[in-house]
Amino acid sequence: MSELPVYDLDAVIAGISPLEAIESVRDAFVRHAHGEWEMPPKVYLDAAPAGDFRAMPAKGGGLAMLKWVSSFPGNPAQGLPVVMGAILVSSSEDARPLALIDVRAVTALRTGAVAAVAAQELAREDATSVGVVGCGRHGSWAARCLAAAEYGPGICFDPDPDAAGRLAGELGWEAGSLEDALACDVVTCVTPGEEPVVRRAHVRPGVHFNMLGADGPGKAEAEVGAVVACRLFCDEWEQASHGGELTGAVEAGLITRDVEVEFVAD
Amino acid sequence: MSELPVYDLDAVIAGISPLEAIESVRDAFVRHAHGEWEMPPKVYLDAAPAGDFRAMPAKGGGLAMLKWVSSFPGNPAQGLPVVMGAILVSSSEDARPLALIDVRAVTALRTGAVAAVAAQELAREDATSVGVVGCGRHGSWAARCLAAAEYGPGICFDPDPDAAGRLAGELGWEAGSLEDALACDVVTCVTPGEEPVVRRAHVRPGVHFNMLGADGPGKAEAEVGAVVACRLFCDEWEQASHGGELTGAVEAGLITRDVEVEFVAD
Repeated sequence: MSELPVYDLDAVIAGISPLEAIESVRDAFVRHAHGEWEMPPKVYLDAAPAGDFRAMPAKGGGLAMLKWVSSFPGNPAQGLPVVMGAILVSSSEDARPLALIDVRAVTALRTGAVAAVAAQELAREDATSVGVVGCGRHGSWAARCLAAAEYGPGICFDPDPDAAGRLAGELGWEAGSLEDALACDVVTCVTPGEEPVVRRAHVRPGVHFNMLGADGPGKAEAEVGAVVACRLFCDEWEQASHGGELTGAVEAGLITRDVEVEFVAD
Repeated sequence: MSELPVYDLDAVIAGISPLEAIESVRDAFVRHAHGEWEMPPKVYLDAAPAGDFRAMPAKGGGLAMLKWVSSFPGNPAQGLPVVMGAILVSSSEDARPLALIDVRAVTALRTGAVAAVAAQELAREDATSVGVVGCGRHGSWAARCLAAAEYGPGICFDPDPDAAGRLAGELGWEAGSLEDALACDVVTCVTPGEEPVVRRAHVRPGVHFNMLGADGPGKAEAEVGAVVACRLFCDEWEQASHGGELTGAVEAGLITRDVEVEFVAD
C-alpha cells in the first residue's frame, strides 16, 4: 500500500493533454455503449448542509475502479475545492491495487472532454462559436477541450468577472454577458445547478447545449420548457433522469426513456 | 494528494491492539444503533469468475469514508490475499482527504473484534471455550480478539492443518477436528461460505455462534435448519438478509425482520 503509485492533480494535468482526454472519453463512451464497461449507479452519502460524497464504481479494460468524490458547493469560500477525493484503481484480474489518482484532474478532464465529444458528434457541422456559462474549474476545462477540438472563439460568462476574464485571456476569447454566451453555437453550461440559466427563449434552431452542471437531485441548469424544446441526448439514463438535467422533465411526465445515448456510430 | 498519510497493513496492526479494536467496534455499534453513523448498503461490482469488488461508504464522527475491497477466493493459489483494497477517509466537514488505509488490517481487526463484542454481549456468562472454524487471516484475528477478551482456551480447525496448528501454537490453544471446534462454548466460523459447516445437530442449548464468513449472495456457513433453531442477531438487516448468513432462511420465509440488532443497552 505504501508503494502504491500516487498521481496528484499536477501529474495528471501534465500527463494527459485535452486532445488525449477527448480521444479517451470518446473511446470510453463507445466501449460503454458496447457493454464492455460496467458502471453501477453511484451511491450518494449525504453530508448536509455542506454537501455530499459519491462513491462511483466502474469496471472495464482489465481494471476495477472506484471514484470517491465530494460536492461541497460552499468550499471555495474557505479556499477549498468543491470537488475533492481520489480514484482507486485495482486490477480486475487479481484485485491488486494499482494506483491512487487525485480526483480533481480526472473529473476536470473528463467533464471537459465530454463537452468536446458531444459537440463533435451532436452539434451542427458548421458550429464554431462557444458560449461558456460558468468559468470555474470544470467550465474552464470544458472551454480548453473545446478549444483543443478547434471550436471557438468563444464568450466566457461567470458571475465573477475575474474568473471569466482569466479564462477568456488564456484562450484568446472574450468575456461577455450571459445573453452573449447563450447566443453562441455551442453553449456549455457548468454552473452549480441551483437555478436555471437557460430559458425556453434561448433555445434557437441549430444551437447545441452541453449541460454539465446538474449532478444531483434537485439541480437543473435549464428550465423544463427549454429541455423539452430540444432534441435530447444523455450518457446514463438512470443518472440523468433521477439526479441530472432531465429529472424535472421526467418527473413532469414530459419525456421518457426514448431519450437515448447516441454516441456510438452504428 | 501526494502528501496524504498512508497507513499500510503493518502500521495498522502495530497501532491498534485487539482490545482497542474491540472497544472501537463496540462504540461503533452503539453509535450506529443510535443513528449517529450512516452506512448505505454496499455496492457490488462483479468481477466473475475471479470474484467481486465492494464499495462501502459510511459517515460519522466528523468523517466520511469509503472502503474499496475485493473478495477473490482463488487469490491465495497465486500468493495473493482474498481481500485487497483501501479505505479512503475524508473530513465530512470540509471534504478534505485525510488518510488512505490498507483495507486488510482494518477488515481483519474489525471482523475479529466483532466476534469478541458479540460473545461478550450475547454468549452465556460462563462461556469460555472457543471453537475456531477457518484459520485464515480473519479467523485468526477473531481468535486473537477472543483471546484478548479472555475467552479460551480454544480448538482451531482448518482444512489446512498447518494453518490450524500455527494459530493454536500462537495462542497456546489446540488444533482439532471440526466436530471438536463445534462442541465449544463460543463457535466462530470464518469460512468461504461455499458450503455449510454448521448443521442442525450442532445447535445445542447455550452455544454461541459467530457466523462471519457469508459475505455475499449465495454464501452460507450454516444450513437453514441450524439458523432457525437459534436466537438470531445481526448487525445490518439489509446485508444479512440479502447477502449474508440469514439469506437462506429469509428466502425460505422462515424468519422476518423481527430479527434485530440488540447490541445496544437500553
